[in-house]
Amino acid sequence: MARVAVDAMGGDRAPRAPVAGALLALAELPPEHTIDLVGQTGVIDRALDELLGDEFAAYAPQRARVRVIEAPDVITMSDKPRVAIRGKPHSSMVVGLRRQANGEADAFVSAGNTGAQMAASQHILKLHADLTRPAIATILPTTSKPLVMLDSGANVDCSAEELVQFARLGAVYAEDVLGRPNPTVGLLSIGEEPEKGNAAVREAHQMLRAESGLAFLGNVEGRDIPTGTCARGPIDVVVCDGFVGNVVLKFYEALAPTLMGVFAEALGAERETLAQAFKELDYSEYGGAPLLGVKGVSIISHGTSTPRAIKNAIKVAVQMADARMSEHVGKRLAEAAALYTPAAPVTSPT
Amino acid sequence: MARVAVDAMGGDRAPRAPVAGALLALAELPPEHTIDLVGQTGVIDRALDELLGDEFAAYAPQRARVRVIEAPDVITMSDKPRVAIRGKPHSSMVVGLRRQANGEADAFVSAGNTGAQMAASQHILKLHADLTRPAIATILPTTSKPLVMLDSGANVDCSAEELVQFARLGAVYAEDVLGRPNPTVGLLSIGEEPEKGNAAVREAHQMLRAESGLAFLGNVEGRDIPTGTCARGPIDVVVCDGFVGNVVLKFYEALAPTLMGVFAEALGAERETLAQAFKELDYSEYGGAPLLGVKGVSIISHGTSTPRAIKNAIKVAVQMADARMSEHVGKRLAEAAALYTPAAPVTSPT
Repeated sequence: MARVAVDAMGGDRAPRAPVAGALLALAELPPEHTIDLVGQTGVIDRALDELLGDEFAAYAPQRARVRVIEAPDVITMSDKPRVAIRGKPHSSMVVGLRRQANGEADAFVSAGNTGAQMAASQHILKLHADLTRPAIATILPTTSKPLVMLDSGANVDCSAEELVQFARLGAVYAEDVLGRPNPTVGLLSIGEEPEKGNAAVREAHQMLRAESGLAFLGNVEGRDIPTGTCARGPIDVVVCDGFVGNVVLKFYEALAPTLMGVFAEALGAERETLAQAFKELDYSEYGGAPLLGVKGVSIISHGTSTPRAIKNAIKVAVQMADARMSEHVGKRLAEAAALYTPAAPVTSPT
Repeated sequence: MARVAVDAMGGDRAPRAPVAGALLALAELPPEHTIDLVGQTGVIDRALDELLGDEFAAYAPQRARVRVIEAPDVITMSDKPRVAIRGKPHSSMVVGLRRQANGEADAFVSAGNTGAQMAASQHILKLHADLTRPAIATILPTTSKPLVMLDSGANVDCSAEELVQFARLGAVYAEDVLGRPNPTVGLLSIGEEPEKGNAAVREAHQMLRAESGLAFLGNVEGRDIPTGTCARGPIDVVVCDGFVGNVVLKFYEALAPTLMGVFAEALGAERETLAQAFKELDYSEYGGAPLLGVKGVSIISHGTSTPRAIKNAIKVAVQMADARMSEHVGKRLAEAAALYTPAAPVTSPT
């Protein structure tokens, strides 16, 4: 049973997209799951009435599983993150996240200001012990199984230790959400050999190699991402600095529509078949990207999210909450920390 | 008139691919251009005889413009760069580059050990004054005009000053080789705003903004690469650290064959039409990547280069030599250096 708080004011298409996305999600989720739409109640109620009175009429049965929670303020896309959180404690973002901190919800989804969501999530939910930064995990489609790439934009100039933290977070996510037991982890670099890469990557390689409990594949390269496979086998998790991850992610996202254009000219009438083939590259299919490392669930959706993208983000949120992923992260980090704690000296029984 | 030294022993398909590539290039180049095939003369002569006696018989007229230059040693793909240069002074790589240093050739092309080629080029040709590192420039196809991305793998952990050096090198290359007068330069980052990016990128942004003589577009993002355009207009040059550039390059290179596979299943018989459309993404179309910053021309080709790829690499080498690009780089760098030299104090005429 998961109670998901959805930021009804966040994103370019709010309130329509989050409200419609909530109805779509509830129709697909088992009946015990509920949604809190957080924002200006007048605006949300009107959006619900409009949708249910028109094209979403078939979703009337879902209405009973929706609660509308008042939050008078709105954090805009141009608000500075930290200023917004401090200055707008009654915003949908802050109120939505606080419900989780207070035990009134199990997850939060927003298509609003990403910087503000990261800062507020870290401030309100707090980071797990032994973490210095949270990371955004993105699911990338490949020609084999999808893989998780992190960090895809929360951090730049990451240390080797932080890259190792991302590896631990990504492994738990791949196991709990993608259902990969003992997931494989690759470190994104510019050559297979351990000595290839920048200083942080080379150091992280040595640390990951030494870490038991992680199925470390060694370095993977940009060429391994489209197929989701490297010479040592299938890749479940790709670890990288948020600068590199964000460049790759935005490049990948832009390619699908770009290539559609190129092929449309070459193929004309075959466009429909192609659109089908490109579905694998459609990001709204995977909804939002979780901010990993916080104690709880916070899903970051694109500002341009459609109702379908929000629906999928909500489903990821439910999956993370139901799998108790945050608990598993805590456990995994504690295990890793124990490995580094010097054991009590053993007295030999002479 | 350009004399191109080609490493006949370099690459997975040597000597056949470099020898055949030389014949293909000469057939397309005006008659004043010549090629030196550098390597084990016995091996090269045999390859020439075999090719001209069989499928390359039509290229017999080109034979007179080919000289075979003896170099008994071969640097292998697994040789450590600096060890190879010192230990194998009679290798095709070192002998080929020395011809340029001695004024016997105008350019060098190799599909051999990239690390060795970078080190030998820097050691033998020397860097232009005011440069701390050379950079590999790659031409990326986009849906508009191709763009130059550098560095695509020669350096990691670049300083802001080095990113600025890459911008100057890339601008000269775009002008001389791609024929773009006053080329636009974008700095690859994770947001348009000057404060987005890692420490080196943020600092480089400020330095590039202050540099006259460069048409600086500001930050560009991963999403701008496939279209070759950002919100401020078309992009001729993308500047980045070699770690990021190499990841993007390898990712891009792997996508074309990967997507071909995806589409082949969806489209069956339309495969041929698609192959045509994908030609834009075919790297062998652009041959090799020049190592910019050295005094001379050194083109790095893929180890897997086909004769066609080598042909195109030779044509790029000729273009760079004919345009006197290395001289232009020297001039551009001197101009930039002059800007930073404090001018003599002006006495006001009171």
